[in-house]
Amino acid sequence: MTQDPYKVLEKRYHRIGAIKEAQAILHWDMAVMMPSGSAEGRAAQLAELDLVIHEILKDPEIEDLLTMAESEPPISRAQRSNLAEMRRMQIHANAIGADLVVALTEASSKCEMRWRQAKPANDFKLVSKELQNLLSLVQKKAEGKAESLRCRPYEALMDEYEPGLTIQEIDVLFDDLLAFLPKLLEKVLTKQQPAGLIVGPSGNFPIDRQRDLALTLMTRLGFNFELGRLDMSLHPFCGGVPEDIRITTRYSEESFVESLMGVLHETGHALYERNLPREWRLQPAGEARGMALHESQSLLVEMQLCRSTEFLEFISPLIKTTFDSRAEQLNTESLIAYYRKVEPGFIRVDADEVTYPFHVVLRYNIEKSLISGDLLVSDLPDAWNDAMRNLLDIVPPDDQRGCLQDIHWFSGSFGYFPTYTMGAVAAAQIYAAIQREYPDIREGVRTGDFSKITEWCCQKIHRQGSLESTSNILINATGEPLNARAFQRHIEARYLT
Amino acid sequence: MTQDPYKVLEKRYHRIGAIKEAQAILHWDMAVMMPSGSAEGRAAQLAELDLVIHEILKDPEIEDLLTMAESEPPISRAQRSNLAEMRRMQIHANAIGADLVVALTEASSKCEMRWRQAKPANDFKLVSKELQNLLSLVQKKAEGKAESLRCRPYEALMDEYEPGLTIQEIDVLFDDLLAFLPKLLEKVLTKQQPAGLIVGPSGNFPIDRQRDLALTLMTRLGFNFELGRLDMSLHPFCGGVPEDIRITTRYSEESFVESLMGVLHETGHALYERNLPREWRLQPAGEARGMALHESQSLLVEMQLCRSTEFLEFISPLIKTTFDSRAEQLNTESLIAYYRKVEPGFIRVDADEVTYPFHVVLRYNIEKSLISGDLLVSDLPDAWNDAMRNLLDIVPPDDQRGCLQDIHWFSGSFGYFPTYTMGAVAAAQIYAAIQREYPDIREGVRTGDFSKITEWCCQKIHRQGSLESTSNILINATGEPLNARAFQRHIEARYLT
Repeated sequence: MTQDPYKVLEKRYHRIGAIKEAQAILHWDMAVMMPSGSAEGRAAQLAELDLVIHEILKDPEIEDLLTMAESEPPISRAQRSNLAEMRRMQIHANAIGADLVVALTEASSKCEMRWRQAKPANDFKLVSKELQNLLSLVQKKAEGKAESLRCRPYEALMDEYEPGLTIQEIDVLFDDLLAFLPKLLEKVLTKQQPAGLIVGPSGNFPIDRQRDLALTLMTRLGFNFELGRLDMSLHPFCGGVPEDIRITTRYSEESFVESLMGVLHETGHALYERNLPREWRLQPAGEARGMALHESQSLLVEMQLCRSTEFLEFISPLIKTTFDSRAEQLNTESLIAYYRKVEPGFIRVDADEVTYPFHVVLRYNIEKSLISGDLLVSDLPDAWNDAMRNLLDIVPPDDQRGCLQDIHWFSGSFGYFPTYTMGAVAAAQIYAAIQREYPDIREGVRTGDFSKITEWCCQKIHRQGSLESTSNILINATGEPLNARAFQRHIEARYLT
Repeated sequence: MTQDPYKVLEKRYHRIGAIKEAQAILHWDMAVMMPSGSAEGRAAQLAELDLVIHEILKDPEIEDLLTMAESEPPISRAQRSNLAEMRRMQIHANAIGADLVVALTEASSKCEMRWRQAKPANDFKLVSKELQNLLSLVQKKAEGKAESLRCRPYEALMDEYEPGLTIQEIDVLFDDLLAFLPKLLEKVLTKQQPAGLIVGPSGNFPIDRQRDLALTLMTRLGFNFELGRLDMSLHPFCGGVPEDIRITTRYSEESFVESLMGVLHETGHALYERNLPREWRLQPAGEARGMALHESQSLLVEMQLCRSTEFLEFISPLIKTTFDSRAEQLNTESLIAYYRKVEPGFIRVDADEVTYPFHVVLRYNIEKSLISGDLLVSDLPDAWNDAMRNLLDIVPPDDQRGCLQDIHWFSGSFGYFPTYTMGAVAAAQIYAAIQREYPDIREGVRTGDFSKITEWCCQKIHRQGSLESTSNILINATGEPLNARAFQRHIEARYLT
């Protein structure tokens, strides 16, 4: 008796899903728990699991099974989506040879290590050779994958983070943004000028109380601590697996504001992972759709919800109780002033939501030119500084605050940056749709009721997993494809009224 | 060009080694970090990695490679040891069919779950059916493996924990112990009687200070925190991997004595794992030899070293400083009285070193009879209580404090118990050998210098990995095979002089 090829594939990909979950926990452990001396051993463990996954995907039987299943597609639409995701994973695994995989791993590791010296030394030349070497391998990978995926090389790289994303989509979106954002920024800066220097609440904020506050708000947002954790790490992130979501933050005794907003941001990611469709657990269709929607969920929570006036009104008394203080700095008005400060700066990760897109546009243009070969690595610092001048009218005083600031390229990650701004734009579009459906939603936020927002996202975004394209999920949820209108209205409403 | 079969095997087993390390970290995480709701998912991850290892070992190519390599053995003795360990792993993996593996996993899991109800309910009947079912599968496994390993079924089970161990070896050792221990115990009890009730130091011992004390002593013993951690878990254990050793303990604010000795015990395990031969990392020969030597290392540290008068003299002032107290209970004499109290009791894990072997002998006799079929599961409670009466002259008032106390059998673990007492005996033999080589070693301990002891163990035990048999390692290290003489002298010296 011949087995249904689709069913056989489900079993094979289920194995991959379980191994990827094991890797997710090991990655979390590496960032949060692992002692410094065992980095090499951990890398070997993770590489071995990578290899096991690759072997499953490169088994010629998988190719036969996929071809058979595709010629007689399974009946349900969801299964067909799962089958398409299976194929996508298999293409990514098979598009490049084992030699190139090994060369990329080595070159990434070397370049990243060199970057860790070059950045504090503020010396781009120290890393330029390694970056050049890595870039040429990434170009090869992009070309190999582009052929299999039938897209352009840069698109093949984006496909790793945001499946199916095209250069044209990004260009349209970014052109739209640049059509209004520079003037809008100018207006915001003019409006904020009288406020002068704004500093966040400073004082002594014990870490255990900051943690209590974080746990309280995470719980309010629907984070279930029987299925997840909050820990500390140098670089905050959301890791783990859907039934064991682990977010991290870092604390400073002097200030709670960054850590608090960071926790809320990661909670948005966590809710997405947590609510992925259970019935597709460990299957490709059960994974989060892509980084654009993922970022939309963290930014929906952080930017749309938690920096809203209503939310800050809600937490101001909570903060005062937590820290047993009545300081003026903890009033809603002070929190608003702090959390809404707009200022062009050199550093992307410190940027406010108005200037952030400029940072992304810059990186998008540059990485596209690097991949196409139009820009040489040696010309990167100048290209960066020119773009900063054009976009934000400031020039980084050094490469540390310029082209050396982000780890992405130096670790081989090209094609990721656009998803940050896609996420920000999608978040605005989603929150606008939620407000259309529940016109009184913001009154709820004022009293700490977020249930309608999270439930809406759960149903319309999270539970969709990878069963639909990003575009379809957004259209089904908000009634329109990704576009900058809601984002524009959001910025205008928040910063100019 | 044909590749050297041994070299090919090394590559395959290297993969297994890396995956086993990943599992070790996931196991640690499960006990220490994992939130309660994700047990099922973690079990699936671990089972998948088990399956990957099994597939590597069951690949028919491995059989061919092993046969080729064995017919033209590699030149070095160490490589031949590694090859023998490869074969042993392959035999264990192939001796029983996939159906039986699945049935065993299910039956263990069911029986253990039922035991978790039966023990608090004090109701053996609640779990007897599940135990009977599990036992018959374990018997099948034992028979299957015995055939391949050419040994007796119970020996095949012991082989999983202590390779090559025979019933005859155990019988000789346990007969030797029983020849002197009952009378010795009587004498000790008579000598200790005037002391009356001894309770450990009680009071308020803040957990962070207990942890500081533990870290200090671990560091003194050579534990390197750049390559390991100390955490908390319900059941203390030593996990992780050689470059990332993770031990756990549990604390009570009311008393520090159990936790402290527990940490020192696990530190003994940790030093063994840490010092395994680096050049055999991820190969079978690079693993710890077996549970007997493993337990010898934890008991060398805990029983031989840390309950010695010299050590307690060394830590008494340290404890006083740590807890900022001059209480009499923290004097050396009080610590000695507490840590040397001998008393027959029902519970193995609470037993002192004089009565502990009786608990092990009891379990050894019973589990051997269960596996051979001479003892029926339904007769287990009576057999247990009879044996307790014969050995320690006490009868458990209920099965909770009798045959339900240990998890081992109910989770499918048979053949493990003897290694506890082998370890205790070996520890005495090893410490005696160290003292012969360094007659002034105990003076060093008095001042907190343990370097000669740990270095001796590192060279003669830890660095041997699985390159020699347990027996050879002990003979090379101590000049004699495992025997009870040093243990007898140790007990006499500590408790009767």
